[in-house]
Amino acid sequence: MKIDGKEGRALWFENGAIKFIDQRKLPYKLEYYTAKTVDECAFAIKEMVVRGAPAIGATAVYGIVIGVNDLENTAEILRKTRPTAYDLFYAIEYMLEKIKECINPLNAADAYVEDIIDRCRRIGEHGEPLIKNGMKILTHCNAGALATVDYGTALSPFYIAHRRGKKFFVFADETRPRCQGLLTDWELEQEGIEHAVIADNAAGYYMKNGDIDMIITGADRIAGNGDFANKIGTYEKAVLAKENNIPFYVAAPISTFDDNLRSGDEILIEERGREELAVVNNCKIMPDYTKVKNPAFDVTPNKYVTGFITEDGIIKKL
Amino acid sequence: MKIDGKEGRALWFENGAIKFIDQRKLPYKLEYYTAKTVDECAFAIKEMVVRGAPAIGATAVYGIVIGVNDLENTAEILRKTRPTAYDLFYAIEYMLEKIKECINPLNAADAYVEDIIDRCRRIGEHGEPLIKNGMKILTHCNAGALATVDYGTALSPFYIAHRRGKKFFVFADETRPRCQGLLTDWELEQEGIEHAVIADNAAGYYMKNGDIDMIITGADRIAGNGDFANKIGTYEKAVLAKENNIPFYVAAPISTFDDNLRSGDEILIEERGREELAVVNNCKIMPDYTKVKNPAFDVTPNKYVTGFITEDGIIKKL
Repeated sequence: MKIDGKEGRALWFENGAIKFIDQRKLPYKLEYYTAKTVDECAFAIKEMVVRGAPAIGATAVYGIVIGVNDLENTAEILRKTRPTAYDLFYAIEYMLEKIKECINPLNAADAYVEDIIDRCRRIGEHGEPLIKNGMKILTHCNAGALATVDYGTALSPFYIAHRRGKKFFVFADETRPRCQGLLTDWELEQEGIEHAVIADNAAGYYMKNGDIDMIITGADRIAGNGDFANKIGTYEKAVLAKENNIPFYVAAPISTFDDNLRSGDEILIEERGREELAVVNNCKIMPDYTKVKNPAFDVTPNKYVTGFITEDGIIKKL
Repeated sequence: MKIDGKEGRALWFENGAIKFIDQRKLPYKLEYYTAKTVDECAFAIKEMVVRGAPAIGATAVYGIVIGVNDLENTAEILRKTRPTAYDLFYAIEYMLEKIKECINPLNAADAYVEDIIDRCRRIGEHGEPLIKNGMKILTHCNAGALATVDYGTALSPFYIAHRRGKKFFVFADETRPRCQGLLTDWELEQEGIEHAVIADNAAGYYMKNGDIDMIITGADRIAGNGDFANKIGTYEKAVLAKENNIPFYVAAPISTFDDNLRSGDEILIEERGREELAVVNNCKIMPDYTKVKNPAFDVTPNKYVTGFITEDGIIKKL
């Protein structure tokens, strides 16, 4: 990813500490957060200095490196940060295993992070040929480098295509309630990819007018039958894409596929608090009496998916 | 409409002046604005103290009453306030006609406003039987009493059903960028109708889960073939309704039908400024570099409409 014109990452290990782009401050300010202790690593995860399952996994492996002299306690502190993040638990177990095998912890952690980045880069390689010169492409939420240390999932094909000189335009859904579209906006702005943010309500308008040629989103979890969970609003865009004959791709690493789930019906959707809707950038935008309902994710049935862009190629669940 | 527990209106004529609920302050504060002069009437329209085509028409007829001693000038000042509001021009011509016929201006203005309200009430009467006990109903934007002096269009069936003791639940789309869903929230809260505000992204989620039984929206303009323009996002909800077999009704007075337009393709859509997206409740929520695209309305093809609820009954355009 580009940060102020230089090649960078959402987080990295340096002088015994983790350095993060502080995502609490984005897109308003570019600041860094340094975690020198295990507690600071836990804070970074809990308080969303870092977000996105792969980036949280990367934080956990380096967190184990920092706390390697008190391994059991470190693992316990990190496990307690975000109880539903699968990558977090996987990353901790991976490190415990490697240390048991007497592999150097920092080498193991670096290998883990490089593997994440390499998978994202390969997602980009497989997705890149879908992007033709002059295309207009919609994305929802932020499935970018900020969430995966580098490249991202949905945004990875954009980066690769852009670096190969392709010209295209990206519509970034604002993605209420948390407005992660502004993180996508920030990433694309840093990279110099032409784009604009639109209200979530406007995506259908542009699709109907023939202004959107393709949609690429990420996925949080993909069931055995190809139904997938992603940020709230993804289902709306998928239905609108089908209605307007627009290809709808989902970019995600193979680890997102969970064949233990037979269908999307088995995916539980988290209902989150009213503050997410009522407060934006520390500003209260809704009166106190306003009641909200706030589902964080939705499930899009497989029938709306043109293909899943993975690190091993584009696949279709039948 | 109910205001602090009492029967009220969005605006009314009193002691030679127009009193408005100041819609610039809603939903955060209930304040009133008094227009004693023609310039203050023009200000109210221009600065959106009052909004909604019928309510603007009502402002214009009372504005003519206030400025009746300098009729030509008054008409000119009012005409210049919002150049695209059809009701505004119609209301001014109506008053000039009546005054030419030597009808008392205040009587003519009152008759105009009572006619608006009566049409809205009849929309409610025709829509009310669609609402069954226990139903969950989605609406988009604010097509309520605030926009039409009283009753509203899309909200009128809700008011009539509620006053007849029916129990139902309303989902109010937030309706980014201007968040008019918060005006709907305010009206329903005042009336004591059970409801919640949702992110525009969440409507599809609730439709797919079987939590929405019907959708009622307003319309800004309806073409001869039944295609209609309404607040951005209406098209998205209509497509999702069809996909989930949910009835989709459009509530609008007969005056909204414009048979000079053969289809929705002839309706020009206004592209509005970035501030609408970037600033909410006087708070900046987007960085300065963020580019946006902001279409204010979209066009929904007739094929998605179950029926148009008008003051003369529910009709279907074939």
